[in-house]
Amino acid sequence: MTNPPFLPRYMGIATFMRMPVWQPGEAADIAMVGVPFDGGVTNRPGARHGPREVRNHSSLIRRFSQATGHNPFEAARIVDAGDVHIERPYNLTDAHGDIEAAFHAWRGAGLKTLAVGGDHSVSLPILRAVAKDRAPLGLVHIDAHCDTGEDYAGSRFHHGAPFRRAAEEGLIDPKRTVQIGIRSTLSELDQWKFSRTSGMRVMMIEEVYKRGIAGAIAEARRVVGDKPCYITFDIDSVDPAFAPGTGTPEIGGLTSLEALLLVRGLSGLNVVSADLVEVAPAYDPTNNTAFLAANILFELLCVMTGQRPPG
Amino acid sequence: MTNPPFLPRYMGIATFMRMPVWQPGEAADIAMVGVPFDGGVTNRPGARHGPREVRNHSSLIRRFSQATGHNPFEAARIVDAGDVHIERPYNLTDAHGDIEAAFHAWRGAGLKTLAVGGDHSVSLPILRAVAKDRAPLGLVHIDAHCDTGEDYAGSRFHHGAPFRRAAEEGLIDPKRTVQIGIRSTLSELDQWKFSRTSGMRVMMIEEVYKRGIAGAIAEARRVVGDKPCYITFDIDSVDPAFAPGTGTPEIGGLTSLEALLLVRGLSGLNVVSADLVEVAPAYDPTNNTAFLAANILFELLCVMTGQRPPG
Amino acid sequence: MTNPPFLPRYMGIATFMRMPVWQPGEAADIAMVGVPFDGGVTNRPGARHGPREVRNHSSLIRRFSQATGHNPFEAARIVDAGDVHIERPYNLTDAHGDIEAAFHAWRGAGLKTLAVGGDHSVSLPILRAVAKDRAPLGLVHIDAHCDTGEDYAGSRFHHGAPFRRAAEEGLIDPKRTVQIGIRSTLSELDQWKFSRTSGMRVMMIEEVYKRGIAGAIAEARRVVGDKPCYITFDIDSVDPAFAPGTGTPEIGGLTSLEALLLVRGLSGLNVVSADLVEVAPAYDPTNNTAFLAANILFELLCVMTGQRPPG
Amino acid sequence: MTNPPFLPRYMGIATFMRMPVWQPGEAADIAMVGVPFDGGVTNRPGARHGPREVRNHSSLIRRFSQATGHNPFEAARIVDAGDVHIERPYNLTDAHGDIEAAFHAWRGAGLKTLAVGGDHSVSLPILRAVAKDRAPLGLVHIDAHCDTGEDYAGSRFHHGAPFRRAAEEGLIDPKRTVQIGIRSTLSELDQWKFSRTSGMRVMMIEEVYKRGIAGAIAEARRVVGDKPCYITFDIDSVDPAFAPGTGTPEIGGLTSLEALLLVRGLSGLNVVSADLVEVAPAYDPTNNTAFLAANILFELLCVMTGQRPPG
Amino acid sequence: MTNPPFLPRYMGIATFMRMPVWQPGEAADIAMVGVPFDGGVTNRPGARHGPREVRNHSSLIRRFSQATGHNPFEAARIVDAGDVHIERPYNLTDAHGDIEAAFHAWRGAGLKTLAVGGDHSVSLPILRAVAKDRAPLGLVHIDAHCDTGEDYAGSRFHHGAPFRRAAEEGLIDPKRTVQIGIRSTLSELDQWKFSRTSGMRVMMIEEVYKRGIAGAIAEARRVVGDKPCYITFDIDSVDPAFAPGTGTPEIGGLTSLEALLLVRGLSGLNVVSADLVEVAPAYDPTNNTAFLAANILFELLCVMTGQRPPG
Amino acid sequence: MTNPPFLPRYMGIATFMRMPVWQPGEAADIAMVGVPFDGGVTNRPGARHGPREVRNHSSLIRRFSQATGHNPFEAARIVDAGDVHIERPYNLTDAHGDIEAAFHAWRGAGLKTLAVGGDHSVSLPILRAVAKDRAPLGLVHIDAHCDTGEDYAGSRFHHGAPFRRAAEEGLIDPKRTVQIGIRSTLSELDQWKFSRTSGMRVMMIEEVYKRGIAGAIAEARRVVGDKPCYITFDIDSVDPAFAPGTGTPEIGGLTSLEALLLVRGLSGLNVVSADLVEVAPAYDPTNNTAFLAANILFELLCVMTGQRPPG
Repeated sequence: MTNPPFLPRYMGIATFMRMPVWQPGEAADIAMVGVPFDGGVTNRPGARHGPREVRNHSSLIRRFSQATGHNPFEAARIVDAGDVHIERPYNLTDAHGDIEAAFHAWRGAGLKTLAVGGDHSVSLPILRAVAKDRAPLGLVHIDAHCDTGEDYAGSRFHHGAPFRRAAEEGLIDPKRTVQIGIRSTLSELDQWKFSRTSGMRVMMIEEVYKRGIAGAIAEARRVVGDKPCYITFDIDSVDPAFAPGTGTPEIGGLTSLEALLLVRGLSGLNVVSADLVEVAPAYDPTNNTAFLAANILFELLCVMTGQRPPG
Repeated sequence: MTNPPFLPRYMGIATFMRMPVWQPGEAADIAMVGVPFDGGVTNRPGARHGPREVRNHSSLIRRFSQATGHNPFEAARIVDAGDVHIERPYNLTDAHGDIEAAFHAWRGAGLKTLAVGGDHSVSLPILRAVAKDRAPLGLVHIDAHCDTGEDYAGSRFHHGAPFRRAAEEGLIDPKRTVQIGIRSTLSELDQWKFSRTSGMRVMMIEEVYKRGIAGAIAEARRVVGDKPCYITFDIDSVDPAFAPGTGTPEIGGLTSLEALLLVRGLSGLNVVSADLVEVAPAYDPTNNTAFLAANILFELLCVMTGQRPPG
Repeated sequence: MTNPPFLPRYMGIATFMRMPVWQPGEAADIAMVGVPFDGGVTNRPGARHGPREVRNHSSLIRRFSQATGHNPFEAARIVDAGDVHIERPYNLTDAHGDIEAAFHAWRGAGLKTLAVGGDHSVSLPILRAVAKDRAPLGLVHIDAHCDTGEDYAGSRFHHGAPFRRAAEEGLIDPKRTVQIGIRSTLSELDQWKFSRTSGMRVMMIEEVYKRGIAGAIAEARRVVGDKPCYITFDIDSVDPAFAPGTGTPEIGGLTSLEALLLVRGLSGLNVVSADLVEVAPAYDPTNNTAFLAANILFELLCVMTGQRPPG
Repeated sequence: MTNPPFLPRYMGIATFMRMPVWQPGEAADIAMVGVPFDGGVTNRPGARHGPREVRNHSSLIRRFSQATGHNPFEAARIVDAGDVHIERPYNLTDAHGDIEAAFHAWRGAGLKTLAVGGDHSVSLPILRAVAKDRAPLGLVHIDAHCDTGEDYAGSRFHHGAPFRRAAEEGLIDPKRTVQIGIRSTLSELDQWKFSRTSGMRVMMIEEVYKRGIAGAIAEARRVVGDKPCYITFDIDSVDPAFAPGTGTPEIGGLTSLEALLLVRGLSGLNVVSADLVEVAPAYDPTNNTAFLAANILFELLCVMTGQRPPG
Repeated sequence: MTNPPFLPRYMGIATFMRMPVWQPGEAADIAMVGVPFDGGVTNRPGARHGPREVRNHSSLIRRFSQATGHNPFEAARIVDAGDVHIERPYNLTDAHGDIEAAFHAWRGAGLKTLAVGGDHSVSLPILRAVAKDRAPLGLVHIDAHCDTGEDYAGSRFHHGAPFRRAAEEGLIDPKRTVQIGIRSTLSELDQWKFSRTSGMRVMMIEEVYKRGIAGAIAEARRVVGDKPCYITFDIDSVDPAFAPGTGTPEIGGLTSLEALLLVRGLSGLNVVSADLVEVAPAYDPTNNTAFLAANILFELLCVMTGQRPPG
Repeated sequence: MTNPPFLPRYMGIATFMRMPVWQPGEAADIAMVGVPFDGGVTNRPGARHGPREVRNHSSLIRRFSQATGHNPFEAARIVDAGDVHIERPYNLTDAHGDIEAAFHAWRGAGLKTLAVGGDHSVSLPILRAVAKDRAPLGLVHIDAHCDTGEDYAGSRFHHGAPFRRAAEEGLIDPKRTVQIGIRSTLSELDQWKFSRTSGMRVMMIEEVYKRGIAGAIAEARRVVGDKPCYITFDIDSVDPAFAPGTGTPEIGGLTSLEALLLVRGLSGLNVVSADLVEVAPAYDPTNNTAFLAANILFELLCVMTGQRPPG
């Protein structure tokens, strides 16, 4: 079910990047997968519809990075492995179990994964599968929120806490974790205390604004270092003027160009897998958010397939 | 915090129908309340935002029914008692517990309730409180779906099954239950078997189309009779041309005029409480759905406060 | 500046029905004109932008009525005479003065007018010009509201009272006035007392529903009779599913087909001029309302140019 | 790549009705296919994006018709055969050639087709393939426009003329052709002269309104008779309140319920293939149009797979 | 009617920042109030609906500034004092009288005010109340337009002239007035002559672009000095990509981050009261504008309650 | 048909900048014209509707540049010469012929042109007329794409290749051509080989970001020099957050302020004519794109009428 690249891009069934649908047993390097779950949100739901809309707009993406000349589709065998089949969506921990199982299976098949959420709570079960046997991983976390919060509304698991849980479970190394783009008002003065006390490097948007993107990249690379790491990109890191289609927007964010440059600047890191989360199409009247997400995914594919840093 | 009726309707804090906010201990007859929960949906979430948007558009509603001359605000003391404070939204049954407790409290305070959802799963905990000591109630159920389905995705409770559970728990009397406006494709040929075997009267949209609204009203009144009953109005009973803002729309539904006439035709029934559910503002670019809901709520208030049947 | 009829309809500067722009002194029969004023609204403003958007969508209208074979553009010289230049928009009565003056000038030039509002308050100054020397006129008034209310918020003039003022000033004959499509809740039980006491024939939407459109037409023709009359069409007579783009929508209205048939059924009446009001493009995401308005204007042109009644 | 039917409907890659993707050589009965071409429009383009959005919303369709109990997916092997790969979209006749070739191939593989446009010009190349060796076919044509017009803007082929060309080429039998829902203004008084002179049965919307849907069905069945026929459903037959997402909307159309009943009423006809055209997602802010189209396609599948007429 | 801060933010009746509704006689420090009036606009109306929509989205704001650690809700007693009840909306000067009276009353009750418009003409009557007995005030005016224009369309009062009138009435000191973000085309070459001749400091957007936000802040602080001042924030100072929901947008404006930093940089000024104006929800399909406004209001609260300048 | 400048801007028939409609034979300097053609697109069509919507929003533009004090409407006689009447829209080369003929006629009448597309393919026939007898012209090309591609889908002419064709035909001088804002993924690594091999100066968005707008302007002026040149502005050069209404958006583009400054910085160049293309209103829910286009057109008028460079 491959869509020939020379065909007009609006034709054909929409898979991620118009890549072939993977069948278990087939050889491949990177699986793009959907995680249609939004049971962990604290405000507006709807990210369950993210994977499909991102697939739709990803068909506009072409082959080569104009900035670096890299073609990830030549550098690796990339496939669309479909969505996690979440059989128990009404229960947060059960759903997380379904997600974890799916990522174990993909990893067992020799696939790196580039996942599309879904809300940010899904990064925790993904990390459980991805970090297994090689924990703790470094983490590049681009987001408006640190997501290292306390229990909320009676639940240890929600989209404001995955990286606290991940650190507590030893999946990520707080000392090699950088959180970029953080901003917004807070419910508690020290709401992200865990980030502070565990040693994560928090780069608030004001610092990004002062350092510039090149400075932010340099600091991120310094923190994460050369050892295996994971990248998680929350679309709400970008300003809602560029990415309105998300459940917990925060004004004052990155521009789309800054977001592109930031991800591209991670080239050369030892990235074992990655995700992009929180695209909620119901709030995206122009589809700009889904299309931006597709472009960020392309940059992530470039980073994951050996692209050399630009410049 | 009452908004004087002579003021332009776009001014002031938006309470239901611009009614005063109720404080525990105050005397009142009918409490309009919000139930901002959508954890029971099977497709598009977002009904948690329904109560607030319905409050907003309900401020356009005036005092008198032009069709009957009835003024529900004179006939009863109507208040806005706020929203159910759902403290455990991540767990369906816990959330239902929070909802049930709130309705017990309101009933204990001597209030009839007119609830605004939220997804249709909330009717079950409401009925548990409302039907207590006087079960089984008759039920007028206006909807595109019978909502008497099997367990789904591992859960006994979801927005496609509340009335099966309610009947099983003895809260409603299937023989005095009428379901109006039913349509759509089905996953199982006998998906609403429970409606059939328990003796509910199912009036599909094709039957409504043939009988006309007057005929549908007559049949509904015959089924429910004079004993206490509950009315539940799912906004997806109305065609999505009129009410796009809902999570599970089904084409081929009632027009807004038919919906108005249908509810108005229930005047004189012995209605103990009622609800209107499934308004999801994220899918409602014109706000027509929230405004339609506000009008249906007005008609329900008329029915609940002694309006004589028209004509 | 005529747009050749064979050209694709999306080309060219948008005049009403792609008609030539009228220059004072030129001979013509019917002037389509805009009245971009919304200072008389009680809720959502925005009808000032109606004329331009209706011009835009009117370019989709073709020449002949398929239902009757009539071509109004052959039967009469129809022009776009531009908008009333309202020089004092901040003062309701001054603005009404500007409007009245413009219509006196057009009438003085021998033109019938088909005006596009603007809010419904503009019908009063139009009637002052149109009815002069031949008052009182009969009136066919298609609307959700009788617009015969009391003073409001300290003003005798607003969009809820023009026809009371018009009757008081002797411009229209209440006995030959029919109001069709009336509905909605009311602030006062007898809010439209003036309609009742002055002898206007009020046909509520429920009556239209029962009589059918043919019955409504027959009754309207009976009331208005053969003497000169004016037609005023408020787009909110139509249900907001069909016409969301208006400032005071009311659910439960006419369908677009009913509206078309109703206007067409007025063929043969002695219509001296007409208007269509309350199109507010800001609330019209599909542009359906402006396009519906353009179609109703075409039907009004047919009625004004000697179309024989259908059937 | 089948999506298990018990999974939540928002999960998985969107194929038509969540059916498996067909590979050449596989046995199947009916191929649902996309025809993403809009080079034949006279006003607003965008129907090239129709197939993908209809796929997306068709995943909400379930298995059984509640009205008749029929399950088309049991009655036949239904597949998604992808889109026509239009390699020369800049030239209308070349593109039509690409389309015709694809349908010849599908027919050669033993498949009936249910095509999703694309603009209405695509019905001509489809009919060339479908009618081959069994022409002339009867035609049920549900539309706001007869589409039997003259050459336009220098082209014999455009979306206002396919059925004239089809009749001229002997593909359809005008005497067994019924056109239902016709309305709108006309550029020429006798714009659809070909329909009249060739003997097609034109049922204008006013006639449908008077006869009722049951009457319209009876007349359609009488005209088409028992011999092989084709069904073409233009989404602009439905009123733009229900189906705004189309390039040439016309007010005063069918309701969604009428459209459903009309198609369902064709059960038992000898339908060799069918299409649904003119869904243009750019004009569809609620997605109601794509979802309506998916439901009509389901009804067409029921008709094509031996459903007995209801009632 | 306080909404507990731990509850999900989409629950409960929407007051400004979920603050309690103020009752006359209660002790408080800062009243957030709405001024739902748009009778002074020159182009698109709709700002009358601003207060309600800003209330709605302000419920997403939390307690602490992450940038400075300040919590305005601890530093002062903040309440929602409702909307000005404008009883004579049809007359600009009468409406201004109603507004002035309300602000005199709030000031008489010992309250600073943070007002939400409404169009910018409302700043004049607010200043009349706020500046009384301590005029002239300094003014920080962030806007795309200087709003120091001549009479327009026969009116001395409109949304393009309030600060000329305020200076003429001695309410503000032009020498301590800074206008930031000014841009757009002009009707007259010296349209803002009054700003120039009276000695206001006009900082056009190009200058802001060159100086950077830190430079703009420094200059604003220098101009206004330590004496009492007022802050007025017109949402159209921000680029319409970030804030489309306004009546007179001008491209080329501030980003949301720049706007946040700019307001935050005013910490330490002697601010007696403030306003934010020109939010028009009808033009805001993503609600980004209302949410941006809520965030700016939070920053203004921080500035008004003793927050120390950042960094 | 001039609209008096003192009138409210929402009144009157919408011509470009409210300029008078030009009649052949009248003296004028610059004709603003529409080119409503989108038959050359590779993805989303709809730019055929650009001229009308840009006319609509251009009525908000006033007379003077606030940045430079220049009034283009005093410096030259500017008119609206209507749209190219494209009589053969179904054939790309025929349509281009119609366009070329129209521009020859306008040039023959002594008019410079400022054209509004339409897709970018229309720049080729415009250049054929504009460059005649004075080729090759320099070119300032602001765009996300170089548009110097190969044949596509069997066509030499499409919106991705006009400047290759223009250079091959000798209409523009590649050595005096600068392309600014280039970005996005590519189908071929050397997709814009022609730009490279012919000697065009390609300034990718990353270079603009590093140099700043002043640096980009300096480089553009250096490349183009003092000899006659043409300016072509593709609205997709701007980021889709600012300009969503276009057929081939690319994230990471210019801000609206950068776009304004960039065009303004071209003042003093020897500009013979210019165009702005690719505004597609169907994708522009806020109308920001059409309004941005109107502002860029104003800046182009300033550049074309002798404005001195700012600063």
